[in-house]
Amino acid sequence: MDRITLNTPLDMHLHIRDGEMLREVVRYSSRYFSGGLIMPNTIPPITTKEDIFSYRKEILNSIENDIFEPYMSIFFKSSYDSQFLKSVRDDILVVKLYPSGVTTNSDGGVVSVDLDEVGDTLSAMEQLDIPLSIHGETNGSVFEREAEFLPTYELLAKTFPKLRIIMEHISDRRTIELLEKYSNLFATITLHHLAITFDDLLGGALQPHLFCKPIVKSGKDRDALRDLVLNGHPKIMFGSDSAPHPKEKKESSNGSAGIFSAPIVLQGLVELFEKHDKLENLQPFISENARKIYRISPPQKSITLVRKEFQVPTTYGEKIEIVPLFAGKKLNWSLEDV
Amino acid sequence: MDRITLNTPLDMHLHIRDGEMLREVVRYSSRYFSGGLIMPNTIPPITTKEDIFSYRKEILNSIENDIFEPYMSIFFKSSYDSQFLKSVRDDILVVKLYPSGVTTNSDGGVVSVDLDEVGDTLSAMEQLDIPLSIHGETNGSVFEREAEFLPTYELLAKTFPKLRIIMEHISDRRTIELLEKYSNLFATITLHHLAITFDDLLGGALQPHLFCKPIVKSGKDRDALRDLVLNGHPKIMFGSDSAPHPKEKKESSNGSAGIFSAPIVLQGLVELFEKHDKLENLQPFISENARKIYRISPPQKSITLVRKEFQVPTTYGEKIEIVPLFAGKKLNWSLEDV
Repeated sequence: MDRITLNTPLDMHLHIRDGEMLREVVRYSSRYFSGGLIMPNTIPPITTKEDIFSYRKEILNSIENDIFEPYMSIFFKSSYDSQFLKSVRDDILVVKLYPSGVTTNSDGGVVSVDLDEVGDTLSAMEQLDIPLSIHGETNGSVFEREAEFLPTYELLAKTFPKLRIIMEHISDRRTIELLEKYSNLFATITLHHLAITFDDLLGGALQPHLFCKPIVKSGKDRDALRDLVLNGHPKIMFGSDSAPHPKEKKESSNGSAGIFSAPIVLQGLVELFEKHDKLENLQPFISENARKIYRISPPQKSITLVRKEFQVPTTYGEKIEIVPLFAGKKLNWSLEDV
Repeated sequence: MDRITLNTPLDMHLHIRDGEMLREVVRYSSRYFSGGLIMPNTIPPITTKEDIFSYRKEILNSIENDIFEPYMSIFFKSSYDSQFLKSVRDDILVVKLYPSGVTTNSDGGVVSVDLDEVGDTLSAMEQLDIPLSIHGETNGSVFEREAEFLPTYELLAKTFPKLRIIMEHISDRRTIELLEKYSNLFATITLHHLAITFDDLLGGALQPHLFCKPIVKSGKDRDALRDLVLNGHPKIMFGSDSAPHPKEKKESSNGSAGIFSAPIVLQGLVELFEKHDKLENLQPFISENARKIYRISPPQKSITLVRKEFQVPTTYGEKIEIVPLFAGKKLNWSLEDV
C-alpha cells in the first residue's frame, strides 16, 4: 500500500502557545487535523470565559482558511464553582489540572490533589459532565512521578465514578493496569512516548530536543504502550503534546521541557503502525476513540499520506527557530500536498 | 573548625585535553593538587612512548612554577606486547581501557573485553605489574551499562589475580559488592557521583552541564557510594573525571558528555565530608589510598581551605568558556590564597 487516507484526525493534547509562537506553529495542526484539544497553560493561563473567547479568537484568526476545530480547555482552579462551570460548559471540552510545578507554566496549579481542596469543583464537574484532564505526576524522583501519582488517579476514579478522567500523555507501563481497572479512566499517548526511550535522550550525546515531561521512559515502557495502541485499545486517544520552545531555550544551560512534533506526527504514526503491520488500528487511535470518549463531532477532513521519503526539516518557524522531533531524520511517509 | 589542611592531594582521574583547552584548565589541577592521573583520550589518543613524552612535556610547559606530577597513562591497544609495555613501564602509571563507543574519543578502543583479543596484553601487564584502568560500561541501556559490565570486571579480576584493576568513576551501587569481593579490584569515585543524581540532571529543567558518562544515577546509588567514601574505604581513590568541553558544545542539540569540576572539587569535597561529620576520612580518600594502591610518592604539598563563602563562577577560561560543576552556587569553603 502506497497511500493511506486518515479520516478526521484529531490531536487531543496540543500546546500552541500564543502570540508570535502561535502564529508559527498552529498551521501544522490546523492544516492536517480536523481538530485539537488546546491546552490552557498559556502565560497567564486560561481561567475565565473571556480568556477562552479571546484565545479561541486568536487561534481562529491565525489559521486562515483551514477547517479546524480548536477544542478549548480551562486551567483547573479549586475556586471554580458550579455556577462558573455551567457558564463555560459549552465553551470547553475539559478542565485541565496540573499538579503544581511539574510542567511548563503549571505554577498556578494545585499542590497536590487534596480532595478537601478540589473535591467540590470535581463534584460539580461530574454533575455537569465536564471531563477532567490531568498531567498526573508527583514532584518525586523523575522516573517515578507518574507511578507515584497512580493512587491519586485511583482515588479520583473511585470518588467521582461518573467523571470522565483523562490521564494525559501516559508514559509508564505501570499506569496501564489502572486504565483497565476503572471505566471512567481514559488516556492520551504521544508519538514520542511510543517512539523513543531515555536511551535516545541520554545514551549517546545529550539530545535536548527529546527532553520532555513526563520524561521518556525505558524500552519496556515504550513497548508496553506501543502494544496497547497498536492493538487498538479503545480508551486511548492520540495526543501529540506537541510543545514548541525556541531552539535557544532548548539548547541552553537550563533547557525547557517539551517536544515539538505537530508537523511530523501523522507521518511518524503511519510509519510506526505500518512497521508493526497494524495500520488498521491507526484510524481509531487518531480519531474515533476521541470522538466517542469526548462525544464530539469534529469537521470532516481527509488527510492522505503517500509512501515517499520525507526528510524532517532541522527547524521549523519563520521568525522563531523550533527544532522538531526527528529533526534531520528520514521518514518513509509524506503528507500529500493538499 | 574553620580551616582544614589537605596533605598532598591527588586527582586520580583527570582529563585536561591538549592545546588551548589544556592551557585553560591545567592550572586548576596543578596549583591545588600534588599530582593527577592524566587520561590518554586526547585526539588522537596517547599510544606511543613519543606520545607520552610530548604530552607530558606539553603539560609541564603549561603549569609554570606549580609543583605537580602529571602521572601519565596510555590508551589500551591489544597490539601492545611485553616488549612495548616494558619500554613504557616507567613512563606511565596505568594502561587505560575504553570499551568502544562509550565515552569521549573512545572509538579507537576495543569493542568489548574479549580475552582472546586482549588477554595477551593483560597478561603482560600483570607480569610487569602495570595496573589496568577501565571505563567499565557496556553499550547497553544507559542506566544499566555499569551493572552489565560487572561480569567483565569479575572475569578480569579472576583471570589476572595479580593485575591491579581500577574500576573508574563507579556510579552504581551494584558495583560495590564486586569491589569488596576481589582484592585486586580498586575504584575511583568523582565528586559529582557523590553529589548529584539523575533528578538534578532531568528532574527540573534540563541541565546539560550535569550530563556525563557514566550517567549520574539514583539517590540510592549516590548514597551508597557516599557511605563507602565517607567511611574511609581503603580501596577507593578520588578521581574527579573533570572533563572540560566548551560551553557551546554542552549547550547544543547534541551535547557532549563530561563535567568540568577541577576548580571546585576540593571545596566541594570538604563541604560534603563536613556535612556528614566525616572530615577525618577525607585525607585518605584524597591522597593516601592512591599512594598505597599505585605505590607512588607524589611531591609534598599542603593545601588549606578556609570556611568562607565561595560563589562558584558561572564560567572558567579566558579564550574558551567552560561551565563548571555547581556553576553560580555558593559553597561554604574556599581555597586559601597561596
